[in-house]
Amino acid sequence: MNPLRAIFDAGGVVANGWLHIGSTWSAEALGYQGFDSLTVDLQHSLYWIDTAIPMIQAISGTPAVPLVRVASNTSANVMKVLDAGAYGVICPLINTKAECEEFVGACKYHPLGYRSLGPTRPKIVMGADYSQRANEDTLAIAMIETQAALNNLEEIVSVPGLDMIYVGPGDLSLTMGLTQRVDSQEQPYLDAMEHIITICKAHNIVAGLHTNSAAYAKQMVALGFQFVTLSTDTNFVTQAANKIVTDFRTE
Amino acid sequence: MNPLRAIFDAGGVVANGWLHIGSTWSAEALGYQGFDSLTVDLQHSLYWIDTAIPMIQAISGTPAVPLVRVASNTSANVMKVLDAGAYGVICPLINTKAECEEFVGACKYHPLGYRSLGPTRPKIVMGADYSQRANEDTLAIAMIETQAALNNLEEIVSVPGLDMIYVGPGDLSLTMGLTQRVDSQEQPYLDAMEHIITICKAHNIVAGLHTNSAAYAKQMVALGFQFVTLSTDTNFVTQAANKIVTDFRTE
Amino acid sequence: MNPLRAIFDAGGVVANGWLHIGSTWSAEALGYQGFDSLTVDLQHSLYWIDTAIPMIQAISGTPAVPLVRVASNTSANVMKVLDAGAYGVICPLINTKAECEEFVGACKYHPLGYRSLGPTRPKIVMGADYSQRANEDTLAIAMIETQAALNNLEEIVSVPGLDMIYVGPGDLSLTMGLTQRVDSQEQPYLDAMEHIITICKAHNIVAGLHTNSAAYAKQMVALGFQFVTLSTDTNFVTQAANKIVTDFRTE
Amino acid sequence: MNPLRAIFDAGGVVANGWLHIGSTWSAEALGYQGFDSLTVDLQHSLYWIDTAIPMIQAISGTPAVPLVRVASNTSANVMKVLDAGAYGVICPLINTKAECEEFVGACKYHPLGYRSLGPTRPKIVMGADYSQRANEDTLAIAMIETQAALNNLEEIVSVPGLDMIYVGPGDLSLTMGLTQRVDSQEQPYLDAMEHIITICKAHNIVAGLHTNSAAYAKQMVALGFQFVTLSTDTNFVTQAANKIVTDFRTE
Amino acid sequence: MNPLRAIFDAGGVVANGWLHIGSTWSAEALGYQGFDSLTVDLQHSLYWIDTAIPMIQAISGTPAVPLVRVASNTSANVMKVLDAGAYGVICPLINTKAECEEFVGACKYHPLGYRSLGPTRPKIVMGADYSQRANEDTLAIAMIETQAALNNLEEIVSVPGLDMIYVGPGDLSLTMGLTQRVDSQEQPYLDAMEHIITICKAHNIVAGLHTNSAAYAKQMVALGFQFVTLSTDTNFVTQAANKIVTDFRTE
Amino acid sequence: MNPLRAIFDAGGVVANGWLHIGSTWSAEALGYQGFDSLTVDLQHSLYWIDTAIPMIQAISGTPAVPLVRVASNTSANVMKVLDAGAYGVICPLINTKAECEEFVGACKYHPLGYRSLGPTRPKIVMGADYSQRANEDTLAIAMIETQAALNNLEEIVSVPGLDMIYVGPGDLSLTMGLTQRVDSQEQPYLDAMEHIITICKAHNIVAGLHTNSAAYAKQMVALGFQFVTLSTDTNFVTQAANKIVTDFRTE
Repeated sequence: MNPLRAIFDAGGVVANGWLHIGSTWSAEALGYQGFDSLTVDLQHSLYWIDTAIPMIQAISGTPAVPLVRVASNTSANVMKVLDAGAYGVICPLINTKAECEEFVGACKYHPLGYRSLGPTRPKIVMGADYSQRANEDTLAIAMIETQAALNNLEEIVSVPGLDMIYVGPGDLSLTMGLTQRVDSQEQPYLDAMEHIITICKAHNIVAGLHTNSAAYAKQMVALGFQFVTLSTDTNFVTQAANKIVTDFRTE
Repeated sequence: MNPLRAIFDAGGVVANGWLHIGSTWSAEALGYQGFDSLTVDLQHSLYWIDTAIPMIQAISGTPAVPLVRVASNTSANVMKVLDAGAYGVICPLINTKAECEEFVGACKYHPLGYRSLGPTRPKIVMGADYSQRANEDTLAIAMIETQAALNNLEEIVSVPGLDMIYVGPGDLSLTMGLTQRVDSQEQPYLDAMEHIITICKAHNIVAGLHTNSAAYAKQMVALGFQFVTLSTDTNFVTQAANKIVTDFRTE
Repeated sequence: MNPLRAIFDAGGVVANGWLHIGSTWSAEALGYQGFDSLTVDLQHSLYWIDTAIPMIQAISGTPAVPLVRVASNTSANVMKVLDAGAYGVICPLINTKAECEEFVGACKYHPLGYRSLGPTRPKIVMGADYSQRANEDTLAIAMIETQAALNNLEEIVSVPGLDMIYVGPGDLSLTMGLTQRVDSQEQPYLDAMEHIITICKAHNIVAGLHTNSAAYAKQMVALGFQFVTLSTDTNFVTQAANKIVTDFRTE
Repeated sequence: MNPLRAIFDAGGVVANGWLHIGSTWSAEALGYQGFDSLTVDLQHSLYWIDTAIPMIQAISGTPAVPLVRVASNTSANVMKVLDAGAYGVICPLINTKAECEEFVGACKYHPLGYRSLGPTRPKIVMGADYSQRANEDTLAIAMIETQAALNNLEEIVSVPGLDMIYVGPGDLSLTMGLTQRVDSQEQPYLDAMEHIITICKAHNIVAGLHTNSAAYAKQMVALGFQFVTLSTDTNFVTQAANKIVTDFRTE
Repeated sequence: MNPLRAIFDAGGVVANGWLHIGSTWSAEALGYQGFDSLTVDLQHSLYWIDTAIPMIQAISGTPAVPLVRVASNTSANVMKVLDAGAYGVICPLINTKAECEEFVGACKYHPLGYRSLGPTRPKIVMGADYSQRANEDTLAIAMIETQAALNNLEEIVSVPGLDMIYVGPGDLSLTMGLTQRVDSQEQPYLDAMEHIITICKAHNIVAGLHTNSAAYAKQMVALGFQFVTLSTDTNFVTQAANKIVTDFRTE
Repeated sequence: MNPLRAIFDAGGVVANGWLHIGSTWSAEALGYQGFDSLTVDLQHSLYWIDTAIPMIQAISGTPAVPLVRVASNTSANVMKVLDAGAYGVICPLINTKAECEEFVGACKYHPLGYRSLGPTRPKIVMGADYSQRANEDTLAIAMIETQAALNNLEEIVSVPGLDMIYVGPGDLSLTMGLTQRVDSQEQPYLDAMEHIITICKAHNIVAGLHTNSAAYAKQMVALGFQFVTLSTDTNFVTQAANKIVTDFRTE
């Protein structure tokens, strides 16, 4: 049912967009630009849950699938965005097995987890049988973004019900003692990416990461990542604007 | 006081951005990309006045000046956005001198016009003396976007208090019987642009127009336009997104 | 393209819902209840354009088609909701041919009308060729709701580009000198309905009306109406609530 | 039913507050400060209809009665705010009898006027019989704020259904050729106030005006005004803040 | 002061409505349908706190009392909705005495609990003495919705300051190993309901539960429940709509 | 960069305002009344994060600096408001060193703390180098508002990275066993204030507190406080309104 699962199962790659602008229009318009999924980000964006819900609704009508990154490993918020119709939840800063279990538990109904029953929107929009198939359909995605998480990676990915990990390059490079950046080419960082792929493959877990360019995304897909975020809406709108103004002002 | 007037008086050119996304964040972020002004568009955007006002406020803190395009020649709306702090108002579809007089009258206080007293935001944000200098400071900008308007151009630009005209290329090319498009290179359209410049110069009126590219904007500046809109936020966000996805999916 | 046209062309009947609650959730949930269309009402509802636009977006993802009733024959508002993606516009209080021409003109692009070019949402959501087919696709729907309109009916329905008329029973019964009500069975009112059908058929115009019950809607379909509104969301929510509380409190 | 009518009928005076801050909380809190009514102003405020409606709802729970000043003599907006539960509508810039008739007509149902039937909120909140008594209950209030309006005053106040006039001192003093200000003590202005009272009494019309101080309001009540606005929420919040900061910074 | 307390003290039963639609209008209209209270649900609804607060304000003007179900046992949110004027807070998933103490502590001021002082809205809307009587007036309501909570029931209800328990049938039936549903007639579930009543009566705690029908609510009242929720607004609006469309489409 | 640091370093005093009204206009207008900073309060206000963010943006354009009080020691919310551009965060109820460390850690990037990288708004509005200087620039402010916090004060203020403490007088007076009030003159309370100043000076930590009057604020500045809040916007608007109505109604 979840189109992303079909892509993963077929060995394909998901191109994901990232939303920091709190607008149903910007979200919906991006849903028609070729992304497989769009992530409504509650953490580093300029909006919160009341704005996010109509964005999820607007994305529902487009070819892209709505995901949500919650701001923290808070079960009430994980459940809230699932009840609003997210096809998957990305949770920041999963550093230990226990944290991963808490997160995955919030994503899945009893007995796999402790998600509270009440899928208000999905049972109307996705089908009356939603609660029966939600545990299989909905993606639980843990962010790996610290050296500590790398150290515990094998334990983290062994949590039953976890579907995917997602690398947060900014915090990861920083806590690895490298230059803090997205799209890093430093060798220890690239080694870490390879290590992540090896572990994920061994546990049948999809690997995803955040990038700021198509070139780096392709490089990571070649490594084995099956889910890549291609920059953010703030980057799109400001970089394109900056370019046209600069072009105009340049002789 | 109005920075755009200083640019015009110095013979310079204003680079303007155009906002269809109803977001304070998108608006504010664009205010830092080098535009001299940003136009909050009430006509063809996906928002209305309740959303527009916080956008005007957000733009106020940036290097760009907030303008508003109203959706029609409706004096209550013209006055409303001026009271919210617009430095100028662009009014669509001014085809006759009478329409222009009605519009300009709404922009200016007695005796020049009939703008109602009550500059709630400007008198706090722009200064307690705002109502004394508003008639000089605030720009009344009439859109020329039909063949009828071209026919009446000389009469329209002769209306006292009118500061600028703004060419709407989509409707203008259509009503001129040409291919409907922005950035037209058809000769009758280019001839019309030259004609507009001639008339505006003769009446000491600034000429502005809507474009979708830096190249066309430069071409028009060479003709004498002093105000050019460089595409829209929807174009920025969707074109940049489309490009990165296409790049990613291309071998 | 417009699914309602296909229904009308096949001689079918459209079941329409009517939205007074300003909520994307209520709107979207109703989109899954079997209606062919949902009308976002700007006139007698408790919301305005900033709330209406995300509702239109939310309805877009459902099996129902979004229509909008504007609050008055104001061309800027008619164009606004079309640019937001309404598949048709219902305009209140069309009493004369001139009023109908003004309304229809706002719905249609040059040369059929004077709708301003700038279909921001439709050109992304409905297709890049939207402006070419919009005049055929989009429904212009005039409300007949006074004795004066009845008197001028033949002239009104002869306006080129008008697609449908929509009977407003409250105001119509009142101005006919009858008891003001929806679902009237008074003979002069029923005669008027038959007269409307006769005129509409002669001019190949669809006839629609507002009802508060399935029974009355069926009665009117039997007369020849092809578009019937089945009550409002406020009625749904309050009547169902009132019934369950009454049932509970009754021994 | 309308508590303001009872006050007027008893020869009392209504103390009114004026709302430029678009907040349900600020509006509701002011409803407990002793005002008889609070006016949600659509003209010179920093909000529009989508924000105004929940403010009207919030005021409904307080001892104060909600009124609305529309931004212009636009019948669709007059009807809209009445359907949202305003107990009266103040319309700016009524300069002629014809303008007054158009305004009053929008406030009253057939046969007194042409208000469209559909009192969505009042029929639930104010009673199922609302539409029967609305014409008597709801106040139509025309603003007198130009020299032209003064000239036509007798004709204006003779329009059947008009309940009250409301003096707008800023625009009135300006168009009278006096210093533009609220709370003017210039003799021609005071003479105009006396003239207004004389005419209103002769036609059994309540007279109201906008003030910025209790002292001036009392002075006007002594003249015969029965409705006085005591400043605005923006003034309240900024003046009180300015005073405490100044007190704090002063040795 | 809290009308629900008076009902409970008189041995009466509270009929409660449940709000998943984020609309001040839907909430207010339901406040006039005979409910004693309406619960603004933050957990399984399609809105969050910024939308909930104006809903609480709108309900304040109706005959119904506003309650809030928070999304989790998070003291900051419990305090927030009390400061917004909730007459009681329902907290999900109270499984242990410690969890109950944490929740009740957030509801009550020192020394009974640790609620932070700052009743911004209540001290204006409910009276300046609010903070003195809030501990008595405000209802702390713990949800019993797991087998674990049943096991610990006696300990949970013995927490000083707890006023009521509220049964969540979906999660409870699921974790009891029964068919997951509301309005269950399975014997172990009914036995649990009887057990709950016995324990609550012994500790002088009101028992409440969620239902989807008047019939089941009556059955539970007969058992001793004094607070019953009668379905949700989403159910009201979708079921009534579905019925009218079905009736219309049925010959 | 942070203007408040410059004031503190120069031995000056910051006059702060406190915002409970969820309005960009009220917030912005107060930014022009002489305050050095305005605190957007998430705890005892009538709004939440979706409303707070545009308020922060609106304050950015004024002479005042935006601070935020979060509702609890929740790291995700602390990070969220910093990413929205708060120049400092005030956290309620810091009673122990461990709580203070958790709070300060959320305010500061690695290695000083664990703030997640992603300063979406600051990197555009405050400069591309924001993340390099944020740890120095941004203020971490712990609230001291219980007897327990007083007991642990020396440990609390010794947490590296803590910039300021802020006294919450309501809860503090209550938990000290005194009359619960702001602006207390009871000796044990005044002694506590002196004690706080002594400890803060010894640890080079700024001391701040909440007051309701300029007089009390001055008294506390004389003790050594360098940051004083001068009442709230709700107080401003209601007290000024109440005064003018009372003046008007008084003979």
